[in-house]
Amino acid sequence: MEKIFDLVILGCGPAGLSAAINAVIRNKKVLVMGTEVCSPPLHKAQVINNYLGMPSIKGEVLLDNFMQHAESMGVEIISQKADTISEMDGIYHIFFGDEVITSKTLVIATGVPYKSTLPREDYYLGKGLGYCATCDGPIYKGQDVILIGHSSEAEPEVDFMAEICNRVYYLPLYKQVGSLDSRVKILDSKPESIIGTDFVEGLKLKDGREIPTQAVFVLGGETAPDRLIPGLEIEDKHIKVNRQQETNLPGVYAAGDCTGPPYQVAKSVGEGQVAGLNAAKYASRK
Amino acid sequence: MEKIFDLVILGCGPAGLSAAINAVIRNKKVLVMGTEVCSPPLHKAQVINNYLGMPSIKGEVLLDNFMQHAESMGVEIISQKADTISEMDGIYHIFFGDEVITSKTLVIATGVPYKSTLPREDYYLGKGLGYCATCDGPIYKGQDVILIGHSSEAEPEVDFMAEICNRVYYLPLYKQVGSLDSRVKILDSKPESIIGTDFVEGLKLKDGREIPTQAVFVLGGETAPDRLIPGLEIEDKHIKVNRQQETNLPGVYAAGDCTGPPYQVAKSVGEGQVAGLNAAKYASRK
Repeated sequence: MEKIFDLVILGCGPAGLSAAINAVIRNKKVLVMGTEVCSPPLHKAQVINNYLGMPSIKGEVLLDNFMQHAESMGVEIISQKADTISEMDGIYHIFFGDEVITSKTLVIATGVPYKSTLPREDYYLGKGLGYCATCDGPIYKGQDVILIGHSSEAEPEVDFMAEICNRVYYLPLYKQVGSLDSRVKILDSKPESIIGTDFVEGLKLKDGREIPTQAVFVLGGETAPDRLIPGLEIEDKHIKVNRQQETNLPGVYAAGDCTGPPYQVAKSVGEGQVAGLNAAKYASRK
Repeated sequence: MEKIFDLVILGCGPAGLSAAINAVIRNKKVLVMGTEVCSPPLHKAQVINNYLGMPSIKGEVLLDNFMQHAESMGVEIISQKADTISEMDGIYHIFFGDEVITSKTLVIATGVPYKSTLPREDYYLGKGLGYCATCDGPIYKGQDVILIGHSSEAEPEVDFMAEICNRVYYLPLYKQVGSLDSRVKILDSKPESIIGTDFVEGLKLKDGREIPTQAVFVLGGETAPDRLIPGLEIEDKHIKVNRQQETNLPGVYAAGDCTGPPYQVAKSVGEGQVAGLNAAKYASRK
């Protein structure tokens, strides 16, 4: 797939879909990169009373309405998560799996802020902590590593590391782990904290054990937006935007819960609209 | 009517009603001061495609849905326009007709910005130009005045001035003028501009005539928000707000078209929600 979009929208919740329909109305080429369940918090809501015009509606039903509206307007939605994003000559390159797509603008609508898996991840990032084993793994060839996996999608990365590392520990945070390379040692515990002063020296587990390693990889968790898009300004754990939903990066907009409270549907839909319209305008000028 | 409200909301369009339902959910005492037709631009819209969840809907139908939602939640709406608003000890006093109500907070949701009737109204305000004949009229006792009326609601003020002034001219900007005091001279034309260097000295009409007077009153037109609420900060013709929908005045919020483009339903509903929730929080703290 090699395409240049006007807008690539990260997230298929109320903010992302609102941005999408508004940009499609402006005749823009739009792609929504979503998740299997769009907006888990809304999906689970028993009743929403404060989205004007649709009183007393179940979260799941409201989300279905949103999705149908977007699909009826021809919005393209894929269930794929961006691995990394880089900018070159004002065009954004979005990498996922072994594919890459390009876009003139980005709308970040990834929902409530990222929660890290371990304390002080930021401090250890690049000092033995990583989020992509196939990217940074080769640095630790012949050494000992621990991989923490949030879902079975992490398993191919674990097998890859088993081929090139000395000892490979795997700490799955989910049930039903698949068949892994026989060299992988599975740890049945939860992670507590990283050990190490300047660099990662090991991982402490909730059961008290300390596993010495040169690297810790956290796989398949949420990716913090500022890690996904280097240089993105964060304020109080949220993406900093102005009233036009512009971030500090040209052509990058953000909308919805990721920009701060209140975490509410109407606020997200409204911000999505402003982000979508402004991104469409930006794409037209380019 | 003597009541203290938590929120008084000026305007019954998408922003005002969204603010209202969100504050009512927070158990706040809310009054919406609306107009006969809420949001005339939406009311006239042939089709709205970009309010997420309600595709291809007629503006009038969408507005009916909004109104029904608000009414189903017990929102109190009156069809009254505030004449003046003043603040004392952090409480806002809203005057209309011969009534006054008080509120801990205000949400301004009055729609697209005010268009003045005459050029340079701001310059002449207080120098012979006024908006309330029953308020400022007595200053011009025994003198010559012109009143410009946007609707028949202005007529009692014209009759009042006929009792106390020397010559009273009336320039109605509507059809079917009612029965007026016989001393009133009706002008069948349109206003062009105010004459006068430091003070009002007369009014120039579109037909070329120049009428010498000491005062010009513009009655029943829209009231600019910063004229209604003294000290309210305006930027580029819109009420200046931050991302919390706070204006420069404590306890005063604004939402919807009056805060700037895009003039769109979802943006208004989202801003109304944020304004309503923040005003509710403010009222609770007081």
